[in-house]
Amino acid sequence: MKRVDVGGILAPAGFRAGSAACGIKTTPGKLDVALVLSDAPAAAAGTFTTNKFAAAPVHWSRGILPSDSIRAVVINAGNANACTGDQGRRDTEETAALVAELVGCRPEAVCVASTGIIGHPMPMPKLRRGVCSAFEALHANDGAAANAALAIMTTDTVPKVCAVEAETPAGTFRVAGMAKGSGMIAPNMATMLAVVTTDAAIDAATLDAATRRLTERTFNRVTVDGDCSTNDSLFVLANGAAGVGIPAQGPLHASFCAALEEVLADLCRKIARDGEGATRLVEVTVSGATAEADAVRAARAVGDSLLFKCAVAGGDPNWGRIVCALGYSGADVRPSDTTVHIGGICVMRAGTPTEEDATAAMREAEVRVEIDLGRGEHEATVLGCDLTHGYVTINADYHT
Amino acid sequence: MKRVDVGGILAPAGFRAGSAACGIKTTPGKLDVALVLSDAPAAAAGTFTTNKFAAAPVHWSRGILPSDSIRAVVINAGNANACTGDQGRRDTEETAALVAELVGCRPEAVCVASTGIIGHPMPMPKLRRGVCSAFEALHANDGAAANAALAIMTTDTVPKVCAVEAETPAGTFRVAGMAKGSGMIAPNMATMLAVVTTDAAIDAATLDAATRRLTERTFNRVTVDGDCSTNDSLFVLANGAAGVGIPAQGPLHASFCAALEEVLADLCRKIARDGEGATRLVEVTVSGATAEADAVRAARAVGDSLLFKCAVAGGDPNWGRIVCALGYSGADVRPSDTTVHIGGICVMRAGTPTEEDATAAMREAEVRVEIDLGRGEHEATVLGCDLTHGYVTINADYHT
Repeated sequence: MKRVDVGGILAPAGFRAGSAACGIKTTPGKLDVALVLSDAPAAAAGTFTTNKFAAAPVHWSRGILPSDSIRAVVINAGNANACTGDQGRRDTEETAALVAELVGCRPEAVCVASTGIIGHPMPMPKLRRGVCSAFEALHANDGAAANAALAIMTTDTVPKVCAVEAETPAGTFRVAGMAKGSGMIAPNMATMLAVVTTDAAIDAATLDAATRRLTERTFNRVTVDGDCSTNDSLFVLANGAAGVGIPAQGPLHASFCAALEEVLADLCRKIARDGEGATRLVEVTVSGATAEADAVRAARAVGDSLLFKCAVAGGDPNWGRIVCALGYSGADVRPSDTTVHIGGICVMRAGTPTEEDATAAMREAEVRVEIDLGRGEHEATVLGCDLTHGYVTINADYHT
Repeated sequence: MKRVDVGGILAPAGFRAGSAACGIKTTPGKLDVALVLSDAPAAAAGTFTTNKFAAAPVHWSRGILPSDSIRAVVINAGNANACTGDQGRRDTEETAALVAELVGCRPEAVCVASTGIIGHPMPMPKLRRGVCSAFEALHANDGAAANAALAIMTTDTVPKVCAVEAETPAGTFRVAGMAKGSGMIAPNMATMLAVVTTDAAIDAATLDAATRRLTERTFNRVTVDGDCSTNDSLFVLANGAAGVGIPAQGPLHASFCAALEEVLADLCRKIARDGEGATRLVEVTVSGATAEADAVRAARAVGDSLLFKCAVAGGDPNWGRIVCALGYSGADVRPSDTTVHIGGICVMRAGTPTEEDATAAMREAEVRVEIDLGRGEHEATVLGCDLTHGYVTINADYHT
């Protein structure tokens, strides 16, 4: 498997993208609508937020996936269309119908996603214009891919894309993805917004199973602020344009899953690194847990601890905040079994301080915390980031 | 029942307090040891952190309570004596023994509490000197009470005390308390540090039951940052000096519980208002829940949401963040049943935005959020505060 440096989400064959600036974002001229089109009907799967106030487009897209005949994903940024009541539902349905009319397919072949402010009605005149302009702009080139990745951003500071190519005995295929996400991030069963394309051929049920399994290990283990959004959506579209059929199991299936995981994991890393206000990526690995869910619980408690996140911001090796979080995580931990390393420096062994200095390790761009619970054989890694003045500035000032 | 404005924790008869500055806090001359003495053996109860990395003094004090013969509570600030292994346990035992020797009682009549940095060995030469000086300083006057409340502070900006007097047909008694707590606050079964004194007479078992029940409704519903500390401890001492005996039930029992709850609730409010960096108190009341635990879960999710806390800091009526938190709280919520008020302004009714402007209500010193889930009859209130640049400054710079 190798990385593909050009083409972004359009690196796989048979996809086009178009974007437009229609004024939903308040900054004039900023791209805020993206349309990703598969030239042929694609198998598609999705994973979505578990938030009970899930946005109207989440309800719509969840209802049509998995599917063997998806043609398009339409995304707007700047308005989440969440907590917008019946009008919100009608607006999503109208958006899908508009794309379907332009593309020449059924509305149920169109996935819809929105991101932005919650609780404001969608400005439909703007969105209608935006969708039409994005359709006019459809193209398969590098610029179209780059613009789509820009159009879905909200507080993100950089676009997030990844593309890989897998060579197999059955032929070569590609998997590529784009994602947005920077705040309100603690996905549970899904993530912010991400669209993944592949030119491999795979049936919808197999794609759905792989997507769910890999989401659990990637997007569901990122946390910026512990807030699970109303709009998290991941779409994976497989159009078969590379002529490589992926079976439901065996080596070729494994190759496909490895490529998909590589793209999802890379997008997650990019989201954590671009967490609102973040200056440092935090990687918390918990091993020696009695169950994988317990390892996740412990790692997430550390990754979510405001006090630890502030310590990372300050480059302060205050590891007491790590063990404090372990202690209230609900995981099966015992002080006398617990060992903690920061960037390879052992700060606590079997519940007792070592008095080693981890200051340098806390000041790296990527802070690695390794916790051995000494209780079992299970392991998990959660990605997070530090909590800085930047986060407060962004979120005390954003909106209204 | 009336408030008592002088005397602080020494407002009830038969207690003395002493404090000392022994250099555990890094600022020279800052009081950091407090000793509260009951002239006669007191019935005592306590509630403590559920953190599995509970500090050595928590293990000690939990082991001796409830008790009918407590004489003293000794507290140091600046070092938590948590994650300090066997040495930490020995240091706590030595501290209890030292106080016992000075007072002339058994070590098991001495409660111990510590607060401050985690994972550093207790500087025992300093603490020994401090305990002796605090004992020398024992007094029953107003200044002794005020100094004790200062000595237990860490990042607190103000001391927190409350005293009440209850007149009953059986006579008059007083209940008073002092607390510290500003960060690492999301108590679960107990709180940061608080000492409550009363001159009522009550047996240890009855006091224990009342303390646990009222802790659940007060300290366990405060959150500053969602971090449940390793050292949370609440002690309640009843020495009977007022000559009013409190039975296990009936009107006099109810009067006692009302006085105790008044003190605990007032200390909680003062802790939330003095949350690290906080500029606004947040009171989240959830009604219409199918169970009280569900009301707490929903209110806590809102009170803990970083995004909502930042919105409060910015005085921004971004109520979408409230419903987002409700949606991932795990509570039994349905959008179409949910109504949200901020400071009396209805911003969402039955899942649909009202487009009312709650800006002014979000800029009050106390922001009141009222959520009706419309699903049942249960209600709970959680106290919290906003998330500001001040919190990040305090916690990115605190220590090492």
